[in-house]
Amino acid sequence: MRVSGMHPLKIIAFLLAATGAIGQTEKGLLERARGSFQPLAAVLQSPANPVTPEKVALGKALFYERRISSDGLVSCWRCHPLSLYGADGLKTAVGNSCRVNPRNSPTIFNAAGQISQHWVGNRRDVEDQAAQSVTGAGSFNMPSSQAVEKTLEAIPGYAGLFRKAFPGETRPVTIANFAKAIGAFERTLVTPSPFDAFLKGDQSALGESEKRGLTAFLDAGCAGCHGGALVGGASYQKFGVAEPYWKYTKSAPVDTGRFDVTKLEPDKYVFKVPPLRNVDRTPPYFQDGSVGRLDDAVWIMGKVQLGKDLELRTVRDIRAFLRSLTGRLPEDALRVPVLPASE
Amino acid sequence: MRVSGMHPLKIIAFLLAATGAIGQTEKGLLERARGSFQPLAAVLQSPANPVTPEKVALGKALFYERRISSDGLVSCWRCHPLSLYGADGLKTAVGNSCRVNPRNSPTIFNAAGQISQHWVGNRRDVEDQAAQSVTGAGSFNMPSSQAVEKTLEAIPGYAGLFRKAFPGETRPVTIANFAKAIGAFERTLVTPSPFDAFLKGDQSALGESEKRGLTAFLDAGCAGCHGGALVGGASYQKFGVAEPYWKYTKSAPVDTGRFDVTKLEPDKYVFKVPPLRNVDRTPPYFQDGSVGRLDDAVWIMGKVQLGKDLELRTVRDIRAFLRSLTGRLPEDALRVPVLPASE
Repeated sequence: MRVSGMHPLKIIAFLLAATGAIGQTEKGLLERARGSFQPLAAVLQSPANPVTPEKVALGKALFYERRISSDGLVSCWRCHPLSLYGADGLKTAVGNSCRVNPRNSPTIFNAAGQISQHWVGNRRDVEDQAAQSVTGAGSFNMPSSQAVEKTLEAIPGYAGLFRKAFPGETRPVTIANFAKAIGAFERTLVTPSPFDAFLKGDQSALGESEKRGLTAFLDAGCAGCHGGALVGGASYQKFGVAEPYWKYTKSAPVDTGRFDVTKLEPDKYVFKVPPLRNVDRTPPYFQDGSVGRLDDAVWIMGKVQLGKDLELRTVRDIRAFLRSLTGRLPEDALRVPVLPASE
Repeated sequence: MRVSGMHPLKIIAFLLAATGAIGQTEKGLLERARGSFQPLAAVLQSPANPVTPEKVALGKALFYERRISSDGLVSCWRCHPLSLYGADGLKTAVGNSCRVNPRNSPTIFNAAGQISQHWVGNRRDVEDQAAQSVTGAGSFNMPSSQAVEKTLEAIPGYAGLFRKAFPGETRPVTIANFAKAIGAFERTLVTPSPFDAFLKGDQSALGESEKRGLTAFLDAGCAGCHGGALVGGASYQKFGVAEPYWKYTKSAPVDTGRFDVTKLEPDKYVFKVPPLRNVDRTPPYFQDGSVGRLDDAVWIMGKVQLGKDLELRTVRDIRAFLRSLTGRLPEDALRVPVLPASE
């Protein structure tokens, strides 16, 4: 573009047009983004479990509660420490009595907004996940739900907290209510980020590389699966569409995904698409934590899902965009609850 | 005492005198208590490691840091969860890779005020405890201090936090500074309780049973060892003066205490006297967590240390007094720090 020979007024006119064009491009990107993504809600509501302050207070205490695990060391916090953005940083979770779990712990932040829980979707929602974890061998490893109820009843301070959270119930200390309380707490674990400000119209919330990354993310087709308010978490997809994933992740053993649950051939290597909120803060990546660096994970996704060999600068731009999904942890959630005393 | 036949004015005079006598008794108890105990300081200072806000901020982050343990799951929080009054509630601590430690985790609250750390006093102070724990097989289990320094250096956010906490040092990311930062945080973990208000002169801070318990505690001779600002933590004593402790605790195996460290015969069964601050909130009791209930622990102490068979009502009163040592956890300490990101 050569402007040096132009008349000064023409130069001004040209610059105005160019500015307008940039403005239009930016506006275009925002419109495009709004076609694929939504800002996070303040609370991830569920009609089946309306969030109340009393449920949240109880759920937060229970989130830290270790006395309901068979080895006395497992609480929700074990695999979802809030100090590490709600994930444990391990390849795969290590639960009760050091039992190694088969898959990577996902972050608890924004998790309630997904279609289901766990990598293979075998937990209906956060409440179901909480309820089932208490008897999971690699989780709390308790012999039964009743054993957990008995343990909670033996800690005098819990009766009042359950009564407040579930008023009018004659026997509120149940696993169903335990699950609802923890679920309610988790539904408040929402982390708005610069990307939400952008989606709400603040074009300055993203920098140049983040906008280039967002464009590349949309152009490459990533948002086809990683869309919505969570930038994922809304569908099941085969991991390894263009090529087998383990060729690049070096995974061993190979995880057959939802096939484990459904035993249906088309579900082989199918996983729930993980949300990308806070992805930069929650390495390592993939269902087996086999990849430690975010740019490697981005490149591998291009390769095995889209059959694209993404250039390094594109990977870097996408990484910049993904970092704009790192959100602010909610202050209320970050206050350690002091648990009721053992009798 | 028969007052019914007395002249009304005499009755009033008698009542005034009786009230005065009660006042004097109460004042007497306060004076007696002040002879054995002191209120907690706001911060447990050490000339060798002055507490600064920057050290405390870094130390708090490091207190939650798991990435410096060989199994990726051990942080200071593991054995000292603040949500459970800084102790783990287990009989004996379970550390790295589920290794069972020989002794019970003491609470971290007020711990910095003791003459030394660990049940047998083999850690000089909280800084020494922190520094040595990183290579302890049952703690962080790292191969060397250098390995921890390298791990911390690989997490970009720590460099700035160490620089702020230790200004002017050319290479501040060292185990010595790690220990100082954690030590500084622990020196702020102070829990003033109703007993402190009483010691400062508020006679209404303790109820009647608590005052009876305090009197019984002093009368029985408990304060001879459990005195000072921490109600213990200031001396080493033989556990089992009147009778072998294991006769009542049913401990197996028997722990020979400081003899393990010094190999001196007089140190057999000698332990650091544990502080009784927050004792009601930190079961189970004794070096091996062999006793679950506080009133059993009180009765056993009377029996094996003082050769006294304390009556149930005396035990109950002493327990009421001990509950007045349960303090308020410091608000600043209860905010979960968000840790620097892995690279």
